[in-house]
Amino acid sequence: MAHIDLGLDENSFPGIQGLLRYRPETARPLMMLAEVLLRGPSTLTPGERELIAAYVSELNDCAYCARSHAAFAAAQLPEGVRLVDEVRADLETAPITAKLRSLLRIAAAVREDGRNVTAWLVADARTEGATDQEIHDTVLIAAAFAMFNRYVDGLGTLAPDSPDAYLHGVHRIVKDGYLAPRE
Amino acid sequence: MAHIDLGLDENSFPGIQGLLRYRPETARPLMMLAEVLLRGPSTLTPGERELIAAYVSELNDCAYCARSHAAFAAAQLPEGVRLVDEVRADLETAPITAKLRSLLRIAAAVREDGRNVTAWLVADARTEGATDQEIHDTVLIAAAFAMFNRYVDGLGTLAPDSPDAYLHGVHRIVKDGYLAPRE
Repeated sequence: MAHIDLGLDENSFPGIQGLLRYRPETARPLMMLAEVLLRGPSTLTPGERELIAAYVSELNDCAYCARSHAAFAAAQLPEGVRLVDEVRADLETAPITAKLRSLLRIAAAVREDGRNVTAWLVADARTEGATDQEIHDTVLIAAAFAMFNRYVDGLGTLAPDSPDAYLHGVHRIVKDGYLAPRE
Repeated sequence: MAHIDLGLDENSFPGIQGLLRYRPETARPLMMLAEVLLRGPSTLTPGERELIAAYVSELNDCAYCARSHAAFAAAQLPEGVRLVDEVRADLETAPITAKLRSLLRIAAAVREDGRNVTAWLVADARTEGATDQEIHDTVLIAAAFAMFNRYVDGLGTLAPDSPDAYLHGVHRIVKDGYLAPRE
């Protein structure tokens, strides 16, 4: 049960869903940020950006966010869930481009501490073809999930075990995005 | 120098200022979030909320954010900079209310890991008079600064040493808030 009374059935609105309904004033900028970072115009695909979000959430051990964004990534990557599982198992051997690997290394550094992003990590990403905006957005996605993960776990929300619990969200996010009205 | 080319004079736009100008699409939701969390309607004063932001940024060793929000807190707390310094020196003996102390303990837990927020910490805050929304907002402020701190440091932005460099921001934020147009 969440640490505060969200005034709703937590089983129906697990993870961040109950929090967004509890405090619409903060929900609006949070979902605007998710939409522009993960689905707005970018040279990184939505699937690649959801993979960064899922990877950071997994490293932060935030079960709800890791399961949600792994499902969103799998639904939008041509390689599907297999690729998400391979990145989760071993970033260094997963069959992804050198550019995406270098960006995921930057995301992992940001997750620990912003100061862990070294000039070397950035130079490596640039050598592999990453643009300044791709580096910027990777840092901000990883930083944003440092927030979302702490928000969801800091208020003690539920993280369903069943993969089925995340399917409705997959359909909604892939089709309509983070700003679609919530029923 | 920042890790990416921000296309501006970093001495004139240190810390997050250059990042907000570099990527206006993400700047908008970020500043909307800061405005509602730190200055929107709340039973916590803007000074108290800026103190939470400064305290988390100090624990995260983010020099630019810690100096900025300490200055914003000092300017909006009746006790001024002395109280900010006392909280920074020792939360347990600083002359603040028991409620604010319990909320700052929750913020420190969120900073480390959302799962560190225990039922005991929340019950203690409630005993000291904190409402559910105050607990919610404290968790989200601490989580948001896990993001802002990583964003500012992860892109290697400047943090001026001189207190004078933060004065202009104090005047602007206290008077007009985070959503005021930037010159």
